[in-house]
Amino acid sequence: MESDAGKAGERPEKETVVGKLVDLLAAFSPRRPELTLSEMARLSGLATTTVHRMAGELTERGLLERGPDRRYRIGLALFEIAALAPRGPGLREVALPFMEDLYEVTRENVQLAVRAGDEMVFVERIAGRSSVGVRTRIGGRFPMPPTGVGLVLLAHSPVDVQQRVLEAPLARYTPYTLTDPESLRNTLAEVRRTGVAISDRQVTSDAVSVAVPVHDGHDVVAALSVVQRFGGARPSSLTPAVRAAALGMSRSLSAAGSAPAGR
Amino acid sequence: MESDAGKAGERPEKETVVGKLVDLLAAFSPRRPELTLSEMARLSGLATTTVHRMAGELTERGLLERGPDRRYRIGLALFEIAALAPRGPGLREVALPFMEDLYEVTRENVQLAVRAGDEMVFVERIAGRSSVGVRTRIGGRFPMPPTGVGLVLLAHSPVDVQQRVLEAPLARYTPYTLTDPESLRNTLAEVRRTGVAISDRQVTSDAVSVAVPVHDGHDVVAALSVVQRFGGARPSSLTPAVRAAALGMSRSLSAAGSAPAGR
Repeated sequence: MESDAGKAGERPEKETVVGKLVDLLAAFSPRRPELTLSEMARLSGLATTTVHRMAGELTERGLLERGPDRRYRIGLALFEIAALAPRGPGLREVALPFMEDLYEVTRENVQLAVRAGDEMVFVERIAGRSSVGVRTRIGGRFPMPPTGVGLVLLAHSPVDVQQRVLEAPLARYTPYTLTDPESLRNTLAEVRRTGVAISDRQVTSDAVSVAVPVHDGHDVVAALSVVQRFGGARPSSLTPAVRAAALGMSRSLSAAGSAPAGR
Repeated sequence: MESDAGKAGERPEKETVVGKLVDLLAAFSPRRPELTLSEMARLSGLATTTVHRMAGELTERGLLERGPDRRYRIGLALFEIAALAPRGPGLREVALPFMEDLYEVTRENVQLAVRAGDEMVFVERIAGRSSVGVRTRIGGRFPMPPTGVGLVLLAHSPVDVQQRVLEAPLARYTPYTLTDPESLRNTLAEVRRTGVAISDRQVTSDAVSVAVPVHDGHDVVAALSVVQRFGGARPSSLTPAVRAAALGMSRSLSAAGSAPAGR
């Protein structure tokens, strides 16, 4: 989740039940997908009695499940509700056929991401067995720069988002990662001008991504990329295929009229 | 969600906040993915003041989002949390490469489902552009019979689940749908014996599915199927490919040791 301030201890007592619930659910993470009651209490900073009561209610409604080991995990009912998120599975439903086409012609990682505040979330990924390794996880949050999809999303973000992202310290993943705000600002202008972002070994030192925007008729609502191994085909040779797939998605989204709006 | 009893009006006052929250979220559906406050109140049966307060808190934490039209929709934060469900996206992560292989060799719909109480939920689906149309939706609930995956899941369900499903009236989708409990009971025994379920035009009159179980080393945790147009390849000719993919998944799940447990 976005906030991890005051993770433990000094939690204000006036927090709402919904707030507590989100804190409780946010205790689960890719590294800790299964938790005991006391782990949930420790990681959420909530009182054990609160955790006990809420976990019971959540389990009863299927939002949490308990395994044979009695540990709690995120339940199928949450998956069912989340399947209705327009900017998640809703967008994916429209995008997937085009992503499959793109995978078929490139045989490389194909990724789709949307902006979430000052970061982004990966909505879908198709990866071949022989594709280069990537750091992404579906439903996972990632900073926008220096990924290809992130550069596209940031280039089309509101000014205040760009300002905050460029003012914050930028992590360096490889020697090629752009971390200087001025160069990054120029890159974003370039991305807006050319309609394509190329992230060359900026995330992992063996991968290059080519990313383009996806529109809904009004706004840029997502970014689509192909990530291939560095030293393979020239990135610019991938651009037409990525662009064609994104145009197909954009046309479907405009036609559907169900614009998955940014926030 | 599972329960829609007391959908409106006669809601007991002592319902918990978590219960109300689930009712509120369950107001959203594939047919109504975007709702106004008053629609949420009407569909959930909750008081308008409660809906107003909860919707505000949920929006603040990203579990709901508001579009430019001011309507509420399921938010990306829910998608992020749900991505950690072991029996949803967790299972999908392991299963997807095998599903892609299966799609590649068959070019037909490939589907993965898990049991949810007395019904099932589709966790993943790969569909080619030319594949036969199916009724399924990822994250969507469906009765177990008469689908192929459902016959597999029901054949390996606890006795009380089988009893309830066979005693309830069974919907007839096509003239070929089995709705007689005795025939169905024989079919389930056959599925356990042969390790494969063939649902021949039982869901839609132009489709046949071939389904097999996926194990985690202990239990049947999911079912995998290929759905093809009736009159295509003989269903039995698909069995080896479906079985091979399911064995691959089962091996990966056993190795991971992170058995997505049934409930």
